[in-house]
Amino acid sequence: MAHQDKAKIGLIGLGTMGSALALNIAEKGFPIAVWNRRADVTHAFHDEAGDLAEKVIPTETHEELVAAIAKPRAIILMVPAGEPVDEQIAKLRPLLDDDDMIIDAGNANFHDTNRRAREAGDKPFLGIGVSGGEAGARHGPAIMGGGEKAHWDRVEPILTAIAAKFEGEPCADWMGREGAGHFVKAVHNGIEYADMQMIAEVYGVMRDGLEMKADAIGDAFARFNEGALKSYLIEISSIVTKAADKHTGEPMIDLILDKAGQKGTGRWTAIEAQHLAAPIPAIEAAVVARNLSSRVAARREGEDLFGAAPTKIPEGAVSDEMLERALIAGKVLCYAQGFDMIAAASEQFGWTLPLPAIARVWREGCIIRSAMLDDMASALTEDEDRNLMLAPVFARHLREGHVALRELVAIGARYGHPMPALSSGLSYFDAMRTARGTANMIQAQRDYFGEHGFERIDGIEDAHGPWHGHGV
Amino acid sequence: MAHQDKAKIGLIGLGTMGSALALNIAEKGFPIAVWNRRADVTHAFHDEAGDLAEKVIPTETHEELVAAIAKPRAIILMVPAGEPVDEQIAKLRPLLDDDDMIIDAGNANFHDTNRRAREAGDKPFLGIGVSGGEAGARHGPAIMGGGEKAHWDRVEPILTAIAAKFEGEPCADWMGREGAGHFVKAVHNGIEYADMQMIAEVYGVMRDGLEMKADAIGDAFARFNEGALKSYLIEISSIVTKAADKHTGEPMIDLILDKAGQKGTGRWTAIEAQHLAAPIPAIEAAVVARNLSSRVAARREGEDLFGAAPTKIPEGAVSDEMLERALIAGKVLCYAQGFDMIAAASEQFGWTLPLPAIARVWREGCIIRSAMLDDMASALTEDEDRNLMLAPVFARHLREGHVALRELVAIGARYGHPMPALSSGLSYFDAMRTARGTANMIQAQRDYFGEHGFERIDGIEDAHGPWHGHGV
Repeated sequence: MAHQDKAKIGLIGLGTMGSALALNIAEKGFPIAVWNRRADVTHAFHDEAGDLAEKVIPTETHEELVAAIAKPRAIILMVPAGEPVDEQIAKLRPLLDDDDMIIDAGNANFHDTNRRAREAGDKPFLGIGVSGGEAGARHGPAIMGGGEKAHWDRVEPILTAIAAKFEGEPCADWMGREGAGHFVKAVHNGIEYADMQMIAEVYGVMRDGLEMKADAIGDAFARFNEGALKSYLIEISSIVTKAADKHTGEPMIDLILDKAGQKGTGRWTAIEAQHLAAPIPAIEAAVVARNLSSRVAARREGEDLFGAAPTKIPEGAVSDEMLERALIAGKVLCYAQGFDMIAAASEQFGWTLPLPAIARVWREGCIIRSAMLDDMASALTEDEDRNLMLAPVFARHLREGHVALRELVAIGARYGHPMPALSSGLSYFDAMRTARGTANMIQAQRDYFGEHGFERIDGIEDAHGPWHGHGV
Repeated sequence: MAHQDKAKIGLIGLGTMGSALALNIAEKGFPIAVWNRRADVTHAFHDEAGDLAEKVIPTETHEELVAAIAKPRAIILMVPAGEPVDEQIAKLRPLLDDDDMIIDAGNANFHDTNRRAREAGDKPFLGIGVSGGEAGARHGPAIMGGGEKAHWDRVEPILTAIAAKFEGEPCADWMGREGAGHFVKAVHNGIEYADMQMIAEVYGVMRDGLEMKADAIGDAFARFNEGALKSYLIEISSIVTKAADKHTGEPMIDLILDKAGQKGTGRWTAIEAQHLAAPIPAIEAAVVARNLSSRVAARREGEDLFGAAPTKIPEGAVSDEMLERALIAGKVLCYAQGFDMIAAASEQFGWTLPLPAIARVWREGCIIRSAMLDDMASALTEDEDRNLMLAPVFARHLREGHVALRELVAIGARYGHPMPALSSGLSYFDAMRTARGTANMIQAQRDYFGEHGFERIDGIEDAHGPWHGHGV
């Protein structure tokens, strides 16, 4: 292609993710015009694009960028979430025609995307969640789109072309209006936090309780990856535990500080769940675990005072199979919570988030991709309104796995292995199969101290207990 | 007093809490002018005030209310949180002098109080958290004040006079600027949620695991109330489990639907903790438990499919003493989390929330009043910056109680008794005494899929693992 031909699409922001996405688009045959705040970065990107360079049009100004794209235009923003997005929109809009489209493909908070969609009015605006890290962006991410369906349809050919494929089906779909795509991406990240935390808890049992070496732990994860747990996260857990540090030759994992960072999307999910009154305790527990991990000095002080929490677990108390089954059950419960939250949002925001399509999109390309998500897609296609834990295939996993999960949580409690996510998963499971719970005690207390009233189980209409003069 | 004398203070909103507070103020000898949206309510309140009627000046308009109060005036708002507060402020301000004070004593979200304080500018505005329900408001609540210290000082004589007293010391204090009072009240409520939830969990073990009758459970709580757990919530837990329904003669508690309501303050606390990255897992678990309790139909469906979760616990596996010790440990951990969150807010909002004073204020009048809070006040006075679980008296409780807590959580896991708050408390304790946790696994995964980088424990400066070409 000669540069005088028009680009099919534009892209702003050539950081890690933007560069990868631009190359992916070019590779799929779509000429793309790119712009970066620093022109040297733009030219370097073009220079290093190799065979794909001929599909890439480097531009130095917004005007040049806009002029390089065929009408009606579409421009992807891949800049840091927050103000940079608003800045770029403000700069671009005056240069664009009314039917030109801006696509925010960054990690926006969906509330911001809602606002930007409203601000855009009739002018096309999409917010799309892109998952899969740099490798995903380069070779096939999962894409969750939000905005007007007609606008999505316009760019769908490009987005499905660059998306990951699961058995030939593209992992890109329209989720709903306004911020629906970014919302679904946030829940994806929340689930990712919980999935990773559960893996870390099982890792801890192997390392500290069974005193297994990193390499043997890696073998166990590799075995897990041959069964129901088959997934990207289990696969890389095996890889990272088996990797040797190039400086010392020691297992890499043993040299990494146990202080987890976060970019905040797990936190957003937890906050949103609270607003929605959607119970996602395993995800909340995982966010808390990251926060606690960052308190390195306090944890040392605690260990000095009380002794180290995790202790050796007696021979034979924990088997490989127990760990695998517990993790399967925990994983089912964590995903059940995530999908439940999506259903709650659908109702509250007046979206109709397509639960089966979400499961399908997550099957490939994204961080939480796994064999189980295909079963989830089937289960949700069958009955979208049912909590996943009640669907036959997952009910079977739980029946087969809950005893192992119980046993593992009990052992964790006894031998000092913190299992916030696994034990929250178990509490959720047990609460969700207890027709007669214990909240009657809470209602009695609330009525006692605040006259908040309660319902009775026997149909008698009397909202108060026999205290404070009621019925004495 | 004849009505022509001026009132010391005014009050708007004669609902349950407003009426109780007005009578409390009148009883302490301060003439009070009152106004309610409905004049008949105002007059009925005056007519039914008995001996106190002579201290009460009923008024029918805002003008009349303002005119009835001595300058510089102070007017308490006790109206529903949200818009009603802004409405009353908008109506009052034009009628007031610049040095007249408005005091929002309702259940405001502290962000709203921050905003109102800013909007008030130099005009005196306080936001005060009032805890203790109707009985507290009438006979002595705990009062947490926020706003300019000089403004607090002006009304302090009235507020300390009406507040609860702990060994003669008034449970009312200034917490800091703007919304500091309402913030502290929100954390109070979050702790209240967790404390109640832990009690409900222990109640469930006795009811479903040990198959104890309500009356016997009430006896157990009465015994607990003689030891370290001595508190209002344990006391009323005993009362409500021993009360008989007036309609059927059955234990009242057995007839109350297990569906807990909430007014949302626990949720605010959970949301704020996420923003602050302050780990309060026991409080979050309690909010989740309330949300789950409201899913009555889903829980029945779960029980139908999987069988009821809670099962009988073998004879001898759980003792009265184990329950008491576990609850003591759980309680310490839940308060440690609450105070930790207050410390985090202090830092982040640039407040200097007085931790020891907060513990002192909570010793009487409020729902979470307890013997333990006096020890907490002492421990925090000694060292305000230390997590409570590390203070000698609480470290002792934990050393004596953590084994029972472990055993109980393990039994709950095995026999299907959901213990979200107690098990979150335990996970927190164990995570906080694990110098070498498992977040290195999470960091390895994050670096693998997103090149997020990590710190190393050996000081070598290399933020990446030997994957993706780094160091291969």
